[in-house]
Amino acid sequence: MGLDALAVVGLGAIGGSVAWQARAAGVARVVGFSPDPEEAAAAARAGAITEIADSPAAAVRGARLAILATPPPVALQLIGRLAPHLEADTILTDVASVKVPVIQQAIAAGLETRFAGAHPLAGTHGSGFAFARPDMLSGCVVYVCATGRAGDRAAGIVREFWDDTMNASSVLIDAAAHDRQLAWTSHLPQAMAYALANTLGGLGLETRAFGPGARDTMRLAASNPDLWLEIFLQNREAVLGALDGAGASLARLRALVANGNESELRAYLEQAAEFRSSLDR
Amino acid sequence: MGLDALAVVGLGAIGGSVAWQARAAGVARVVGFSPDPEEAAAAARAGAITEIADSPAAAVRGARLAILATPPPVALQLIGRLAPHLEADTILTDVASVKVPVIQQAIAAGLETRFAGAHPLAGTHGSGFAFARPDMLSGCVVYVCATGRAGDRAAGIVREFWDDTMNASSVLIDAAAHDRQLAWTSHLPQAMAYALANTLGGLGLETRAFGPGARDTMRLAASNPDLWLEIFLQNREAVLGALDGAGASLARLRALVANGNESELRAYLEQAAEFRSSLDR
Repeated sequence: MGLDALAVVGLGAIGGSVAWQARAAGVARVVGFSPDPEEAAAAARAGAITEIADSPAAAVRGARLAILATPPPVALQLIGRLAPHLEADTILTDVASVKVPVIQQAIAAGLETRFAGAHPLAGTHGSGFAFARPDMLSGCVVYVCATGRAGDRAAGIVREFWDDTMNASSVLIDAAAHDRQLAWTSHLPQAMAYALANTLGGLGLETRAFGPGARDTMRLAASNPDLWLEIFLQNREAVLGALDGAGASLARLRALVANGNESELRAYLEQAAEFRSSLDR
Repeated sequence: MGLDALAVVGLGAIGGSVAWQARAAGVARVVGFSPDPEEAAAAARAGAITEIADSPAAAVRGARLAILATPPPVALQLIGRLAPHLEADTILTDVASVKVPVIQQAIAAGLETRFAGAHPLAGTHGSGFAFARPDMLSGCVVYVCATGRAGDRAAGIVREFWDDTMNASSVLIDAAAHDRQLAWTSHLPQAMAYALANTLGGLGLETRAFGPGARDTMRLAASNPDLWLEIFLQNREAVLGALDGAGASLARLRALVANGNESELRAYLEQAAEFRSSLDR
């Protein structure tokens, strides 16, 4: 069973990539909405969508699956606004990095059986359709969160979309467990990049003073600040725990450098090297 | 005036790339030494060197320019060991990340007029000739440190090599100023990557839980631990200052998330995004 009609609300880097890849996978009808008419036009020109809708409600009409790929606060609003108009056989999903608020909103909107949250572990620090790619999501891990037991069928349909149409690897996970884990694996690297960028940005050095290592370590800091403001605040408690963990690790490294204990410092560096290298094996 | 005979001692990622690019730029004779015969053979097979030497002393014989591209402690030893045998018209240089100890050693070895330190702002987290590339150094910034005023001519020759033969951009800088600056721009990003890797490595999560953002932010942690042990300890005081700067920035971010002050948090994130984005403009 293939998907024949997809709606994508938000045609930025993620939404644009989802739409584009769905078209490439043969989905006949991909309707897109963007609050920016130029972005929608760019998506249509690229062949990422087959139709431009003039509102989110118009986009989801007739869709088997409707994906909200907007900033998190907009997605929360749209779940409530679209719920009364959703056709009986339309499944709604999203792509936000924090899942508990989304799942709570879907339940509050009466969409237990018609909604599942999703979070593809992919993306870019860039924003907008200009950063969309027709293969960005291929092969990535996608966390899928059901709205409790009543949402099993919807979660299955959303997983099928990611696994079959997007060629990704879906993983079913409880929303609270997802948010706790992502505070460490995603929100913390983002925070470290911000802290480093604000440390180095204050030095007043020329651009050429920063080599590829510094640039890569700070890459995430170029992301959309509004998006990350929401993520940090929505997942505040877990993010604070992760920040404390990293702060303790940095303090430990500082102590090892300060006291010049070569064997312990070497062990610290080797442990980090072993872990990071293991991710490439 | 072109360079006709180059010696490269150490054929790892940096030394191998320097040799390879020199050959590509038409240097007739590039003699290489590696303590690992297989690495030297690989460099010869790739066409990165024209001759394999069986010792550092043999490598530098007859060279107009001899480059030490070994781990920092080995480079310090070699400056002392090679000095008595250096032919009158051979200039010696290196590629280490910390320059004060190297310059001090060159002066102690009586090489004021024959040595200049260099530090190309390029490289990889990988080690060994397998990570060398014939274009790795093209376009990069290379800091060059003279051994005081007596070393101006040697520094000029080393700059000419990087600018003309390597197609890089040399910048003359005082060794102490270099080490203070690099503590922030290079050694600190490295430290942040280590701290993050040791924080995340302890979670016991599967490899697939880490997306491209986390991987990039930790990329530097895969570097050679022995190399970085030396760098942190050689540049200890400056590195501690940089670690304190980053620790304060991370603590500030934590406080902004904890108290939920949206406008100050947004300003912090926007400042970081503006700085990191400015590096790509």
